[in-house]
Formats: sequence, C-alpha cells, structure tokens
Amino acid sequence: MTKIRIGIVGYGNLGRGVELAVAANADQELVAVFSRRDPASVNIITQGVPVCRLDDVENWKGKIDVMILCGGSATDLPAQTPALASMFNVVDSFDTHANIPAHFASVDAAARPAGTVGIISVGWDPGMFSLNRLYAECILPHGKDYTFWGRGVSQGHSDAIRRVKGVKDARQYTVPVEAAMDAVRSGSNPELSTREKHLRECWVVAEDGADLAAIEREIKTMPNYFADYDTTVNFISQEELDRDHKGIPHGGFVIRTGKTGLNGETGHIIEYSLKLGSNPEFTSSVLAAYARAAFRLAQNGHSGAKTVFDIAPALLSPREGADLRAHLL
Amino acid sequence: MTKIRIGIVGYGNLGRGVELAVAANADQELVAVFSRRDPASVNIITQGVPVCRLDDVENWKGKIDVMILCGGSATDLPAQTPALASMFNVVDSFDTHANIPAHFASVDAAARPAGTVGIISVGWDPGMFSLNRLYAECILPHGKDYTFWGRGVSQGHSDAIRRVKGVKDARQYTVPVEAAMDAVRSGSNPELSTREKHLRECWVVAEDGADLAAIEREIKTMPNYFADYDTTVNFISQEELDRDHKGIPHGGFVIRTGKTGLNGETGHIIEYSLKLGSNPEFTSSVLAAYARAAFRLAQNGHSGAKTVFDIAPALLSPREGADLRAHLL
Repeated sequence: MTKIRIGIVGYGNLGRGVELAVAANADQELVAVFSRRDPASVNIITQGVPVCRLDDVENWKGKIDVMILCGGSATDLPAQTPALASMFNVVDSFDTHANIPAHFASVDAAARPAGTVGIISVGWDPGMFSLNRLYAECILPHGKDYTFWGRGVSQGHSDAIRRVKGVKDARQYTVPVEAAMDAVRSGSNPELSTREKHLRECWVVAEDGADLAAIEREIKTMPNYFADYDTTVNFISQEELDRDHKGIPHGGFVIRTGKTGLNGETGHIIEYSLKLGSNPEFTSSVLAAYARAAFRLAQNGHSGAKTVFDIAPALLSPREGADLRAHLL
Repeated sequence: MTKIRIGIVGYGNLGRGVELAVAANADQELVAVFSRRDPASVNIITQGVPVCRLDDVENWKGKIDVMILCGGSATDLPAQTPALASMFNVVDSFDTHANIPAHFASVDAAARPAGTVGIISVGWDPGMFSLNRLYAECILPHGKDYTFWGRGVSQGHSDAIRRVKGVKDARQYTVPVEAAMDAVRSGSNPELSTREKHLRECWVVAEDGADLAAIEREIKTMPNYFADYDTTVNFISQEELDRDHKGIPHGGFVIRTGKTGLNGETGHIIEYSLKLGSNPEFTSSVLAAYARAAFRLAQNGHSGAKTVFDIAPALLSPREGADLRAHLL
C-alpha cells in the first residue's frame, strides 16, 4: 500500500496532535514538519522525519500529498492556507465563523488554478457540529437547533484572564447550563439568552499581594468575554492549577428538536454530543480523516475549496465502499 | 422555483409519512402515489394528487423526478427498487442489514444502464446511525462503537407476540439498559451480551379465558425474538393498549469511545442519539431529504446505486453552498 504523504505546517498543540493522529492511521505517513521557528529548536516525536523551514516549503512540491495546516485562525491561516493551496492539497481548521466565506473564497481562488483541493474549517466546531446542524435541519425542516459548548477549556477566555493586572496564570471553563439543555430537549423551542446557555468558571492564580477583589471584579465585568455571563472566580495556587487543570478538555452538544405530522403533532429530538479529553488532539484526528478525503478528491480530478459539507462520508474512511456497506451500514 | 417532482410507491405508515415530509419541504411536490391496491380504496391526504396502479407506473416516466419507495424490506423492495430504478431515480429504506450488499448490487445493475440514481437503505438505522458509526470510526480509529436501540416499539416483535395462541393484540418495546450505556461511556470497551444491552417489555391483550401463564412462557422462550433477553410481559385490556400504546416511538444511541495521544492516554466520547415520536414519520423525513440528493446527483450526470455514505451532506439541503457556509458551518 502506498501511504498518503502528509506534511504538517505549524507545530504547537494542534500540530503535535496531527502528528499523533497520522501515526494512528495506517494509510498515512508523516513526511515533514514545517515551522517558522528555527528547525533546530523544534523537537518532534516521530523519528527520522525532518523539521523544515516554512520558507523552503516550495521544494516539497510533488513530495507531499496533503499539507495539514495547524496555525491560528487570526493571522496564520488567512495567509497560509491560500499560499499553500497554490502548491499542495491542504486541510485547515479555520474557526473564525464570521470570516469563513472570505477564507473559502481566497482558498478557492488559489486552489482552482493550481488543481489542488483545500478543505477548510475542519474540526468539531466548525466541523462535526456543523455537520450535525446540517443533517438535522435537512431531516427536520420544521424545528430549531441549539449548540452548547463545554464543559471545556476556552483558550481565548483563559488568555483574557491572564491579561488582567495581578493575574499570574488562569484557566477558564465554559459550562453549559443543564436547565437550558433540558428546556431545549423538551421541544419548547425556548429563546435563550447568552447568560441562560452557559456559565463561565474561572480558576485564577494571583500574584503575591494582588488585590483579589479587583481581579474578580475586572474579570466579571469584562465586555464580550464575561460581562454577559454568570461567572465564578476561584483563586488557587499555581500548584493546584498545574495539578488539577492541566488538561485541555472540551466538548458540547448540538440538539435539534422538530415536528412532523399532519399538524406538527409528532416531536423528535436529534442530539449529538462530544466529550473530549483533549480539544487539540480531537481536532487533529478530524483533520487527519479529512486529509484522506482531500487526497482522494484530488486524485479524482477535483479542485478548489471545500468544507465538511461537500465531502461524502465514505471519502473519510480507509475502508472500501463494499466493506463499509457490509459492516457499518 | 421548479419543484422536485416526487412519487410515492406504497401507502402504509411510511408512505403516509413521506407524503407529510414532502409537504414540509418547500422545494418538493407530490405528483402521484402508486399502490398495488385498488386506487379507489386508497385515501391520501393531499388534495388533487392521483393514486395510481403500480402496474401503470411506466406511464409516468419523465413526469416524476424521484420515486420514494415505501414497501417492506422482506419482499417488496428487493423486487421493486431495481425494477423502478430502471425507469426513475429512487430512494428506499431497505433495512435488512445482512442483505444490503446484494440489494446494492441489484439496484446498481438496474440504475447504471438507465442513467438513474438509486439511494438505498435510507432512514435512521441503516441511515443516520450508520453515518455516525462511520464518522466516529474515521475520527477515532482506535476505539469501539456501540449501538443501542430504544426505547421504542419493535413492529417485528409485536407481530411475533400477536402470533402466540390466545393473544389478541400486543405491543413490544425495546429498551436499552442504562447500566450498559454507562459502561460504554466510561471508555472501558465492555464486551456486552445481547441480554446485557437491551430489555424487552411486552404489553399483551389476551383473549377471554386464555391461559396467561402459557402465553407469558411462550413469549419469554421464543427463540431469536425473546429467549436471549430479559423480557417482561404485562397483560392489559384492549382499551389500555389503545390508549397508552398507540404511538410508534423509537430511537436509540450510537456511542463511540476512542483514545488518542502518544500512548492512548487521552479518552474521547462521541455520542449520537435519537428520540423519535414516530419511527415511520422520522424515517420518511430522512427519505425526503435524500430524495433531494438523488435528484441533484442525477442532474449532475451521476448514476448507479448509492448509500448515505456516498452522499455529500450539502446535497441534502435546499440551501445554497454559500448560505450553508455563512450560517451553519
């Protein structure tokens, strides 16, 4: 079996997760890791795989089947995904929902003339949650869907707390409100405010002598991040934070309730949930599966930008169609 | 907007559900219902739509975009789906898992030369549950999936009870065992026997003077249907059965747990569940969504047999790709 040759661009939590996910897929092999850092400073897990300068990526044209892009959505991917799509099939996890149309357009414009495939916004939200919103809406057009996130660590909110004066370290958990989920499952189609859907739970390490009341007040009133939520702030030691809040778990729920019948008298609930031990490792696993699809689509002459909505599920599997029909259908 | 012209073949619970589902989809219109019964004896809901003899279906070639087949998997669909696929795009809910490969082959052989698309085994299991087994396996290759059914009415088991001597009417519920689901969610990959996964709950109306103990014994020891399960038998009156057990609810769970990380140290749970007020109405709603996909695939020059694994999710939606990316991704 010729393996799908994978390149990784960017080696943080996500890049490391992709490295592990590729190793877990028997039909894929890691060929090179690309970084903007000095390659000598980047230590990867896989033996015998080179770490290369991103500036030299062009030399790898024809030697890598799919590049999995592991940079951030704020500044890395808007530039990197189109640039790399002009040379390689690419998959990214671009997750700034509001900018997806523009990102799709720029990747499409780069990939089409190059004859490459670029699958964007792959992961769990956007990604698996989006798919579940789509499937459920198509099946139950008369209904309403709700997405809840958590319980899980929000990196962005943790960072926001760390920028508060007197804060040494912090971890923020987004927690879905059980009562809101139950109201949704009842089929009553509740209108839920931001505050009613999620709680924000903060674990904060303060600097010695810091004004704890001031820190708590500043967190709870922070616009966009916390002001619209019921927020709890817990002060703990660095040791406790390191011991009890080291992981990056996440997850959530997509719930759609809908009605069928002559007069909408029949109710149905479709629910999808994830409980992830590690947000980046799960996202990476989704990226690796979609890399397989990108490779196959390109082999079959497709090109341009795609999203999870455009990918037939069978393309994600290493198994043959007949095998899937006999054993999974 | 030109609507997708739908025909329904077979007008039982499923056919009636498809009629309602088509009415719920603004881009579809019901054109005709076909039955083996005398058309004069078949009363449908939609005004102005003809009920026709199935024998005359050939006259409708070119007047119907997609035929939705609502017969049974035992004898109807193995003959009807290939026969109709030679004239029309078709969608069916063939659900005899063991015979799917043969059914796929016979539909494919009929559809390819005719230039039609035949999507088979559409519904929730096979169907949405299959999709969730596939997606979850592709994302977490090192893991295990479990399917639980219920709580819901099994038509086949209810029929089996009705064939017992002294039984006037009956309803059987398949009930997933909560402890087994919790064991699965723990990530321990338990080996579960048939008995450990599901209970069978029977509600039986006996004929006057029937031997209740004999009925209960015969049900509980019935091979294949009940012998391998913990089964409860409750005798009630016809009035109680009609009042409390009229509906055809169903549902279930697909749960996959898997591991990622350098040494499989990170656990994840993917869970999909359905709680359906009416099994046939939900299955019908899935059929109507896949009819849209069949129409589009045929329009784009595709032909042959397909399953839910082969259908890109966007094909199920009446919304444009750009709209989906902007609002659902």
